[in-house]
Amino acid sequence: MSRPSRVRVDLLNISLDGYAAGTTITLDHPIGGAELLFAHFDGRFIGGVHSADAPITADRTATSIWGQGVGVEIMGRGKFGPQTGPWSDDEWRGWWEDEPPFQTPVIVLTHHPRESIDFANGTTFHFVDASPHEAIAQARELAGDADIRIGGGPSTVRSFLDADLIDFMHLTVEPIVLGEGVSLWEGLGGIESRFDVEVIATRSGLVHQFWNRLGRSGE
Amino acid sequence: MSRPSRVRVDLLNISLDGYAAGTTITLDHPIGGAELLFAHFDGRFIGGVHSADAPITADRTATSIWGQGVGVEIMGRGKFGPQTGPWSDDEWRGWWEDEPPFQTPVIVLTHHPRESIDFANGTTFHFVDASPHEAIAQARELAGDADIRIGGGPSTVRSFLDADLIDFMHLTVEPIVLGEGVSLWEGLGGIESRFDVEVIATRSGLVHQFWNRLGRSGE
Repeated sequence: MSRPSRVRVDLLNISLDGYAAGTTITLDHPIGGAELLFAHFDGRFIGGVHSADAPITADRTATSIWGQGVGVEIMGRGKFGPQTGPWSDDEWRGWWEDEPPFQTPVIVLTHHPRESIDFANGTTFHFVDASPHEAIAQARELAGDADIRIGGGPSTVRSFLDADLIDFMHLTVEPIVLGEGVSLWEGLGGIESRFDVEVIATRSGLVHQFWNRLGRSGE
Repeated sequence: MSRPSRVRVDLLNISLDGYAAGTTITLDHPIGGAELLFAHFDGRFIGGVHSADAPITADRTATSIWGQGVGVEIMGRGKFGPQTGPWSDDEWRGWWEDEPPFQTPVIVLTHHPRESIDFANGTTFHFVDASPHEAIAQARELAGDADIRIGGGPSTVRSFLDADLIDFMHLTVEPIVLGEGVSLWEGLGGIESRFDVEVIATRSGLVHQFWNRLGRSGE
């Protein structure tokens, strides 16, 4: 590849009113009470349709692109855990027990850096205080030619969109109205003009949106 | 997996009148003059969206499932070459020069068996005179737990559909009328009753159909 690797958002679920997470993340509510956003998510199909012996639907086909060719994830601190402020519990190793699904290096953005955490399955969490541009530069060093995934939550994705750093984004719009939560779109009025946005609807009621940044590729 | 591997048709292009190839295959016309069927095909995306640095569209996302988890292909003789009857030219090694895109064993169905042909990229063509059931049995031995792809042409796919051997089929309906050709559907009236058929349309004008055999899975 002659260009830098892509910066992608793979499979971000949002509500009709634009929320991609609930307001307050707790141990019992990792999505801040907005678990309805994952009503159609089938994690067995991330990475490919061969991963599960079940009917291959349009939703699962779209889900399957998650992670293909991705060499590193950048996530906000809230995706890693419910804590805020200085770390008081160094035992916390994320929500995923021994099998974080990332299997790549992961940069966790936080104002409170701490020691990296290694998992046997190839996931390593690095805790970094960095701007979006700085985080991308660090991610490129970790990912080489592979793509960089911005893994959420919504305020993290929003900050990378605001900095014009996202090349591709796959959104799934759930047919639900949350009424409150963390918005993906707040402060981003008109952002669609920077992208080619393609939309398909599936029979589950989901709308899949494929956002490709204009000007990146001549095809 | 407790069940046998799936038998799949990945990305078969058909016209509005149901043709998936032209009538007569020649050296100059490998699709029998029906090359319009491939107007939207982007081979760079087979196997995954990471294979090409170009916008990830809905069509390309659907294309990307081609080959994922497939361990063997079964094809009709017409897909391998334009010859008919006894082989007169043993130099013919298929349309693809040194890089057949299969990278697995391939069973070529023919009434005229000949020596197998090996390629350095993992593709091996075996020439076999077999019924659909016999071909599947041989393919299972070659593929192990991996899926079996029925690669076409349309009369080959039709014979496996008729024998009720297809578990999954991804069709793309091109918005064209060919008027003549080899039909996918001839003699298969009512076959949709054996499948769950999901349909999505994309802005290119393609209609993607996902056919999943009823009764295979508990989903």
